[in-house]
Amino acid sequence: MDNISMSAERLEKKTTIDLRKKHIGPSCKIFFSQDPIKIVQAKGQYMYDEKGQRYLDCINNVAHVGHCHPDVVKAGAQQMGLLNTNSRFLHDNLVLYAQRLQATLPEQLSVCYFVNSGSEANDLALRLARQYTGHRDVITLENAYHGHVSSLIDISPYKFHQLSGAQLNPFVHVVSVFPPRKYRRDQPDPATAYADEVRDIIAKVHKKGGKIAAFIAESLQSCGGQVIPPVGYFQQVAEHVHKAGGVFIADEVQVGFGRVGTNFWAFQLQGEDFVPDIVTMGKPIGNGHPMSCVVTTKEVAEAFMSSGMDYFNTFGGNPVSCAIGLAVLDVIVKEDLQGNAMRVGRYLANLLEKQKEKHALIGDVRGCGLFVGVELVRDRLKLTPATAEAQEVIYKLKEEHILLSADGPHRNVLKFKPPMCFTGEDADLVVEKIDRILTDLEEALGLKLPDTVNVENESKKRKDRH
Amino acid sequence: MDNISMSAERLEKKTTIDLRKKHIGPSCKIFFSQDPIKIVQAKGQYMYDEKGQRYLDCINNVAHVGHCHPDVVKAGAQQMGLLNTNSRFLHDNLVLYAQRLQATLPEQLSVCYFVNSGSEANDLALRLARQYTGHRDVITLENAYHGHVSSLIDISPYKFHQLSGAQLNPFVHVVSVFPPRKYRRDQPDPATAYADEVRDIIAKVHKKGGKIAAFIAESLQSCGGQVIPPVGYFQQVAEHVHKAGGVFIADEVQVGFGRVGTNFWAFQLQGEDFVPDIVTMGKPIGNGHPMSCVVTTKEVAEAFMSSGMDYFNTFGGNPVSCAIGLAVLDVIVKEDLQGNAMRVGRYLANLLEKQKEKHALIGDVRGCGLFVGVELVRDRLKLTPATAEAQEVIYKLKEEHILLSADGPHRNVLKFKPPMCFTGEDADLVVEKIDRILTDLEEALGLKLPDTVNVENESKKRKDRH
Repeated sequence: MDNISMSAERLEKKTTIDLRKKHIGPSCKIFFSQDPIKIVQAKGQYMYDEKGQRYLDCINNVAHVGHCHPDVVKAGAQQMGLLNTNSRFLHDNLVLYAQRLQATLPEQLSVCYFVNSGSEANDLALRLARQYTGHRDVITLENAYHGHVSSLIDISPYKFHQLSGAQLNPFVHVVSVFPPRKYRRDQPDPATAYADEVRDIIAKVHKKGGKIAAFIAESLQSCGGQVIPPVGYFQQVAEHVHKAGGVFIADEVQVGFGRVGTNFWAFQLQGEDFVPDIVTMGKPIGNGHPMSCVVTTKEVAEAFMSSGMDYFNTFGGNPVSCAIGLAVLDVIVKEDLQGNAMRVGRYLANLLEKQKEKHALIGDVRGCGLFVGVELVRDRLKLTPATAEAQEVIYKLKEEHILLSADGPHRNVLKFKPPMCFTGEDADLVVEKIDRILTDLEEALGLKLPDTVNVENESKKRKDRH
Repeated sequence: MDNISMSAERLEKKTTIDLRKKHIGPSCKIFFSQDPIKIVQAKGQYMYDEKGQRYLDCINNVAHVGHCHPDVVKAGAQQMGLLNTNSRFLHDNLVLYAQRLQATLPEQLSVCYFVNSGSEANDLALRLARQYTGHRDVITLENAYHGHVSSLIDISPYKFHQLSGAQLNPFVHVVSVFPPRKYRRDQPDPATAYADEVRDIIAKVHKKGGKIAAFIAESLQSCGGQVIPPVGYFQQVAEHVHKAGGVFIADEVQVGFGRVGTNFWAFQLQGEDFVPDIVTMGKPIGNGHPMSCVVTTKEVAEAFMSSGMDYFNTFGGNPVSCAIGLAVLDVIVKEDLQGNAMRVGRYLANLLEKQKEKHALIGDVRGCGLFVGVELVRDRLKLTPATAEAQEVIYKLKEEHILLSADGPHRNVLKFKPPMCFTGEDADLVVEKIDRILTDLEEALGLKLPDTVNVENESKKRKDRH
């Protein structure tokens, strides 16, 4: 245990649990609900419980530059003591931050709206798209999650499929997501195949008299199971959508700010020829401070203004949020966290690929930078999701004081999205533990690798592609 | 000038303005757009520009316990350095804060959802209401404003009337708001008269096959022009709405946390026999920190959970927000800010009533605690809104370094909602300046009081009622 203060605990754990049951909405789920963790302190990629036990954090992408980074804390604390007010007054932090964010993006994405959460950002993106186009229909991907406000539940199959008797909003159209494993093997040109489905759905919408306002997608699907779109898919989709008078919204709430390693924004993985019309940001932007941003073109911004309706967001773009946002950008550069994400991400992916050669339960390893998914399957040929096994891995890792989660439509994808200061040694540790847990599990289940030769070939092909 | 650091300015004012034009959405309006103010620091009820000039702040209700209150800054800074993570881990701040908030409310309002803004709170309130009731239709008041996300624009006539060719969402029904001046003079029982309209609209909705999910109202209408509902109105409305299977949502985003002086929540002005089903909070809750809360009953919370859909809000209820929320509650008690709001609010209202006896332009003075509106009219009998004159007062006050705003459907209501540490001397100063500005204005316009006797009588009647 490092220098951890226990004074942060004020109640017995049992009391905390009882009060939570009494006063916090039961829809707000807790990790490991049978035996939840009480975290009282965190630093870098580590979290500490009330007994001072250290957990390696592989999941908190929000604590982007590391939990409680001193530069970020200092920037926030200083500005809190000086001024915290709304954006109806001039303030340098607001404009300097907007300028800095803009510099990370293609030139035409030059106008910012500061809001408080990814949900507020995506809702505003829809408002911008609808006002600019005068259209209403939205195309979204299968398994997508874009936020918790009403307008976003409508475009989030990941959420609305949880509702018994859910009704699809008639203005929302769901297209297939590129099955992460399948397209890599079966299709010579998956980008075109899946983009063609967007083209076809647009034609259907037009036939019914609808008009496309936007296509929205996470640049890499996160809750959907760490799914990376085939290169060229966004370009082709954008072409179809623009032709229909709609706009392309890239949701970078989970995956932006250098996480993918090779690029600052995940949509840039598609190539320099792709520029979305609207980009939304969130989670990591303030290292945990509630803030987010929508960036768009001058044309979209002017159309939004011309509606005659002001946009005022009470907290959005306040000097404290902007000071924190600036500090996060500074730390990313100063500590080369994007470079670290690339290097450690590759190292982690390689370690996991080796595990795949060893463990029948691992059906796929995929990801970019420090955004990596390990899909567990009961059968590599049938791709049967190993949902219970994924849960078992998560629980066993927790006993080893490692925090990992499972997601995807079948909750069978182990999800790595750690703070960006994650190290090679951290990767070694978690992979070593996963190795042991999978070995035990496979032994208990009597699972063996089906055909060593095939597996190796497939793994080699993948590496060639990266 | 107090001990104000000028180091907070990093750019020439002109550069700040140019960058803002380039990078901030033009729908985000600035105060005094012809000659905006650059604020670099603030303390208590005062704000300071880049030249160190002090402004008396009569409008920033968000800086509830005073700008940059040291206790709040300290609580936030300390917790930022210790831990800032999501509510999927147990944390004492979350449950202690929920418990403290609950203690300010009627017993049955016991379950909290922590979110990031008033908009997120009101959107969630609608989701709770719709899930609990299984109904969809919502009744809202004329001139209401409930937030900026899509679902709330729909129930905010204050906003959607700004849109050219706005279409009312077919599930939204707007009822008349009690005209603040008219009902006090003309109607023996305004509560029943206006509640009956709700009853009638419910009947109409039923006839068309609709079903009422909720009635939503600010406990006192703020953007609508500081309008106070007649006592008994909420009880009667709640009765009609409950009979229809709907719930009552009290929006306390602007007016909660002791601002009304006599009570901690503004809905409590209606009497102890009134309990809303859902209360939403926002702006002042974190003294500027982006946070907010929805509180409801166990029954509503359980129905929401039974839908099968989790509710996760990335930043909502994080330990930093909760530490700040707790500090705000502490300061309100420690400095008796609710008592101050009552005393200074009454003093301010009395000063303004005296001004009304003197100035033909003042049509009405109304409010509770430190939430006071002064309605300017060109003609006291016809109630012609003095919109330009209200703007003139605001601009002249700015020259005197006093920040006040005008709102209401005709933007002719001077709006006092200062930090709660506002003093009697502050009230003296602003009223003295208003007196002078109105004197000059009336002279220029040739306006005189129509009939001194009537005015005095009316004013006396009002006082008897308070």
